[in-house]
Amino acid sequence: MRESLKRYSAEFVGTFVLVLCSCGAWLELKAVGYVGVALAVGLATAAMGYALGQVSGAHLNPAVSLGMYLDRRIDARDLFGYWAGQFLGALAGAAMVFLLVALSNVGVATAADLGCNGFGSRSPVGVWLFGAILVEVAISCILTLVALGSTGGRGREQSSGVARGVALAGVTMFAAPLTRASANPARSFGPALMMAFAGDPVPLGQLWVFIVAPFVGASLAAAIHGFLKPGAKPIKK
Amino acid sequence: MRESLKRYSAEFVGTFVLVLCSCGAWLELKAVGYVGVALAVGLATAAMGYALGQVSGAHLNPAVSLGMYLDRRIDARDLFGYWAGQFLGALAGAAMVFLLVALSNVGVATAADLGCNGFGSRSPVGVWLFGAILVEVAISCILTLVALGSTGGRGREQSSGVARGVALAGVTMFAAPLTRASANPARSFGPALMMAFAGDPVPLGQLWVFIVAPFVGASLAAAIHGFLKPGAKPIKK
Amino acid sequence: MRESLKRYSAEFVGTFVLVLCSCGAWLELKAVGYVGVALAVGLATAAMGYALGQVSGAHLNPAVSLGMYLDRRIDARDLFGYWAGQFLGALAGAAMVFLLVALSNVGVATAADLGCNGFGSRSPVGVWLFGAILVEVAISCILTLVALGSTGGRGREQSSGVARGVALAGVTMFAAPLTRASANPARSFGPALMMAFAGDPVPLGQLWVFIVAPFVGASLAAAIHGFLKPGAKPIKK
Amino acid sequence: MRESLKRYSAEFVGTFVLVLCSCGAWLELKAVGYVGVALAVGLATAAMGYALGQVSGAHLNPAVSLGMYLDRRIDARDLFGYWAGQFLGALAGAAMVFLLVALSNVGVATAADLGCNGFGSRSPVGVWLFGAILVEVAISCILTLVALGSTGGRGREQSSGVARGVALAGVTMFAAPLTRASANPARSFGPALMMAFAGDPVPLGQLWVFIVAPFVGASLAAAIHGFLKPGAKPIKK
Repeated sequence: MRESLKRYSAEFVGTFVLVLCSCGAWLELKAVGYVGVALAVGLATAAMGYALGQVSGAHLNPAVSLGMYLDRRIDARDLFGYWAGQFLGALAGAAMVFLLVALSNVGVATAADLGCNGFGSRSPVGVWLFGAILVEVAISCILTLVALGSTGGRGREQSSGVARGVALAGVTMFAAPLTRASANPARSFGPALMMAFAGDPVPLGQLWVFIVAPFVGASLAAAIHGFLKPGAKPIKK
Repeated sequence: MRESLKRYSAEFVGTFVLVLCSCGAWLELKAVGYVGVALAVGLATAAMGYALGQVSGAHLNPAVSLGMYLDRRIDARDLFGYWAGQFLGALAGAAMVFLLVALSNVGVATAADLGCNGFGSRSPVGVWLFGAILVEVAISCILTLVALGSTGGRGREQSSGVARGVALAGVTMFAAPLTRASANPARSFGPALMMAFAGDPVPLGQLWVFIVAPFVGASLAAAIHGFLKPGAKPIKK
Repeated sequence: MRESLKRYSAEFVGTFVLVLCSCGAWLELKAVGYVGVALAVGLATAAMGYALGQVSGAHLNPAVSLGMYLDRRIDARDLFGYWAGQFLGALAGAAMVFLLVALSNVGVATAADLGCNGFGSRSPVGVWLFGAILVEVAISCILTLVALGSTGGRGREQSSGVARGVALAGVTMFAAPLTRASANPARSFGPALMMAFAGDPVPLGQLWVFIVAPFVGASLAAAIHGFLKPGAKPIKK
Repeated sequence: MRESLKRYSAEFVGTFVLVLCSCGAWLELKAVGYVGVALAVGLATAAMGYALGQVSGAHLNPAVSLGMYLDRRIDARDLFGYWAGQFLGALAGAAMVFLLVALSNVGVATAADLGCNGFGSRSPVGVWLFGAILVEVAISCILTLVALGSTGGRGREQSSGVARGVALAGVTMFAAPLTRASANPARSFGPALMMAFAGDPVPLGQLWVFIVAPFVGASLAAAIHGFLKPGAKPIKK
């Protein structure tokens, strides 16, 4: 029990850092551009793999944890524990970015400034609902395929953080101008809830897309991984 | 037979992801710049190495597979199976980018928007036919040299994806403004066929350059690798 | 004794290189942007890990060394020796950037040109004192968590430089426009002292924030790492 | 003898690729910026480490080879063989970039377009002679320190290419606007000779700085490495 609590706490810390770096980079979009945002989320993912990978695997993402559960790397109790840590950590990370805005001359932050995921008028290039679903299913599937392919057994290799960071930076490079590239229900939830408190309910209203689509993508990845992995032999490292 | 099908399917999935990230990044060229495009193709290659390297080696590229065949890492049947998976995957990836354009306010995509490879008036800096051939032979040769140097035996190391991703990002940085940096017949084929459907036959008419030159470059790489590799001793890791 | 001197000298050399690359990149901010600055500090940290990691661990940072001391990786004498090497190295690095400015047509360098850390009117986006403290505590905590998670025993793995470089680049991407991203008392001290010599005492007057906050962040990281690391079992690699 | 020829040929191929990617990226400076140039040289160095590291160590740089010789990793005959391969490879690489310019609508290339190293009026920010010497000694010393620290024995680890690529990208980020960041006598020689053929003798006249300073920096690095490395014990990996 005590060891599980450590794992869930590690997911809290890691997701906090991921959302802090992700939404923090969106806040500075004019200074760092979409390339900076994509690198920030990738580098934060890799860094948390080094810091926390040996504790919990540093999934930082409810969709990745679902994929790990479907491939029987973690059990159902851990899945819910990981989810709790991830959603709470993402909320704390978004709150800290919100606080940093309040403590500077940046001015009032809009949902776009916080990097809230969105479609229609809330997407930088105006991608429609079905396009947003397609993008999010695809990038979550890619990310989860990499998570499953870069780990074996219980999935706590430090190096998996680098693999997922590489994948996340790669898909964010093209998906950021479409939906601001979630692929992660927790990362969408944190800033959406903060904006609802701040008086803009639209991101929270669009949130279902960025929860359902990543879970669908992760399930698809688990199916593809199950089909492709070598039959009777254990996964080679 | 069943294991081969898994390998060919892995090449389909991996090349789909590569072309999705590559053409997707070209679509956002104004937002991410040539640096973003170069990083996107490198990161996608590395990510697929982690996800699929242990299944098929994640070549993602008919020229790399030809180099592997010439160095006797895969047999002729696998070569054709890999090619089938790669060309079909590239077509599916380009179709998805096309679909995303249709599902957003981006407007009608031109061949340049999709990142179609080209020379003459279809090159960003107007590189001529012979210059385009020279560039594509060189960058395909570099990429295949790295593929051969970073693998041993049957060439299914996960780490080779990172090595090829590094090489591809490096050569794309200078070749992107010349020919939009193919080095990969499948990656050129997908968007060219999509544009032909959409009414612009020029990329398909120029496609032969981006199929012949990469295969020449890969053959050159196999020859150089064969000359340089230590004689009787096995390749050290 | 003689071996300790080597370690302290290694910290001098490594911190010199880190501050040279960091302040040098700030000097070229118009040419490389915040993304270039973030990559430069990350790449310099990783490079010094390769060059000096096996000698001293290449902490390059008094806050990281404090975290290593609190986690019982180095003893108190080494802590002070590392600090001496780091502060002197940072001063030498900042002096060299100052000299390069004097030896070119760049003109007179301001504190902003040298990348001096600051808050209020000395922050690019005008972050206030409390916001600056919050940012610096957070990014120092993240960096030290990665330092502790990526090392075992006496902490002299070369690979830890890459891990810390990844983390530093990631947090700099969002923190650079806020406080110019210190997370390192020595890196703040060098350019602040140089500017005081050059007639601008403000960075030296604000220096206490960029010494206290990183030490607080590193202590927090040591506590979190102590709580999360697996109990009786040794740290798995 | 035959094995030595392979090593010298590998240095030819690798330096050709490095200069092709380096000068090619400079040619596209408006498209990729200084960040793109820095990443291109780093990625090319790392890629050649994967492709050729196990053959020759992939030094790609006469200064690095001098450092390896001074640390007794290679003997005097190999030093001259490596130098021959490197200078010829750099010339071939610069010639190919020159040919690509002639085969496109880019127009006539100036020394700046080819990325010729320079000081005074030939430096982007007008760094003076002594400043240029200082920069080149420093960055060559850093690069060679990383080369020596990331290898043991005869220095043919593939991973050393990544380490040197990381270092080269990091120092190029700040040194590119000063001297266009050589740290490599061969990389300076190739484009300087090409420009002399094309009627601009200035880069060839300034070449001595970019040959002498890197050799001084590499010698300094060998001395520092010799002082810092653990005494009687072999270098730990």
